[in-house]
Amino acid sequence: MLTLHGVGLSPFVRKVRVALAEKNIQYEHIPQVPFGQPEEYFKISPLGKIPCLTEGDWALPDSSCIIAYLERVHPEPALYPSDPKEFGRALWYEEYCDTKLVNALTTVFFQRFVRPTFFKQEADEEMIQKALTEEIPPILDYLEGEIGDRAFLVGSHFSIADIAATSPFVNFAHGKEKIDAGRWPNVAAYVERIHSRPSYKPIIEEEMSG
Amino acid sequence: MLTLHGVGLSPFVRKVRVALAEKNIQYEHIPQVPFGQPEEYFKISPLGKIPCLTEGDWALPDSSCIIAYLERVHPEPALYPSDPKEFGRALWYEEYCDTKLVNALTTVFFQRFVRPTFFKQEADEEMIQKALTEEIPPILDYLEGEIGDRAFLVGSHFSIADIAATSPFVNFAHGKEKIDAGRWPNVAAYVERIHSRPSYKPIIEEEMSG
Repeated sequence: MLTLHGVGLSPFVRKVRVALAEKNIQYEHIPQVPFGQPEEYFKISPLGKIPCLTEGDWALPDSSCIIAYLERVHPEPALYPSDPKEFGRALWYEEYCDTKLVNALTTVFFQRFVRPTFFKQEADEEMIQKALTEEIPPILDYLEGEIGDRAFLVGSHFSIADIAATSPFVNFAHGKEKIDAGRWPNVAAYVERIHSRPSYKPIIEEEMSG
Repeated sequence: MLTLHGVGLSPFVRKVRVALAEKNIQYEHIPQVPFGQPEEYFKISPLGKIPCLTEGDWALPDSSCIIAYLERVHPEPALYPSDPKEFGRALWYEEYCDTKLVNALTTVFFQRFVRPTFFKQEADEEMIQKALTEEIPPILDYLEGEIGDRAFLVGSHFSIADIAATSPFVNFAHGKEKIDAGRWPNVAAYVERIHSRPSYKPIIEEEMSG
């Protein structure tokens, strides 16, 4: 039995949960938070980060590593394109979204959701406005052009690129913001469509009701 | 024909050059530096980072994405373990070394090599000492235990894990530092052994003579 360590609110833990749901893999879920971790947690995840996947003594940190591993042991349905050039591009979108997009959107999430909920602190609205007006628009401009009017970010199938590109927008919603559909209509429609998948929807609903 | 964009001194560009050499793939090399990039460069590498691989109109940034792509189009010799659990662990070591190890070792490289060479500035020795005494030792302790007395970081073959774990130590050498072989004998012997591979040695020699 696989065990997934990491609180579901993390955009990276959510990536893995969506991949597990797409592949219909059963797992135990331990909602480890990424601060104040017990010393034992660093033995399975040396940087203390979430998620981490374990099976007996074997441990694998990092959402990208975990999903690549799951593809090897449960190849169907495939979450990586079979065409090599599309495969490379899907990995690139995952990398871009796991860094640039997550950093920008989780600024809003951290200030508006994490600080009040977990640390009893007020949000820094100046930092939020800077993210909303300076950091996020160029990222959405880039994604708007890359997605265009296509159903998926890469090729003609749902892939790891779509998981990585849409997970951080759940955090944006937890931060009480949404994509301006007038300015970025392609991204807004795409994210809503991907979030409605049978694998994704129950995960978001569980978070929203939590 | 493939074109690799990125100056060879980058630990990430070096990763790709070693992978290309291991697979005996010919390529054109454009030594793009990661600052003051022309506007066109952001069209192929949206974050402005190096390396980026191009073939005609197709572009792929990021060393991890590039090497994963190369494995798909030139599978032999394999740079990723065939066993799924070893495959996952190899990706994890790559992620750990590309972030934690690179950040720590390139502090020394940036201060002692990049600042004097490219910016005509003096090294910040206080920052270097902090890296050498506080940041780097726990990382070497971790790698020392993971490698043990084995030839390779994962399984019984050379892999992406070995490329990622050893490339940043070339930058450490450019920063006039080396691993204390008394304190970390396994890591010191391992890095020296991997750097001596026929794929790796000419790349390091070219840098050292540059």
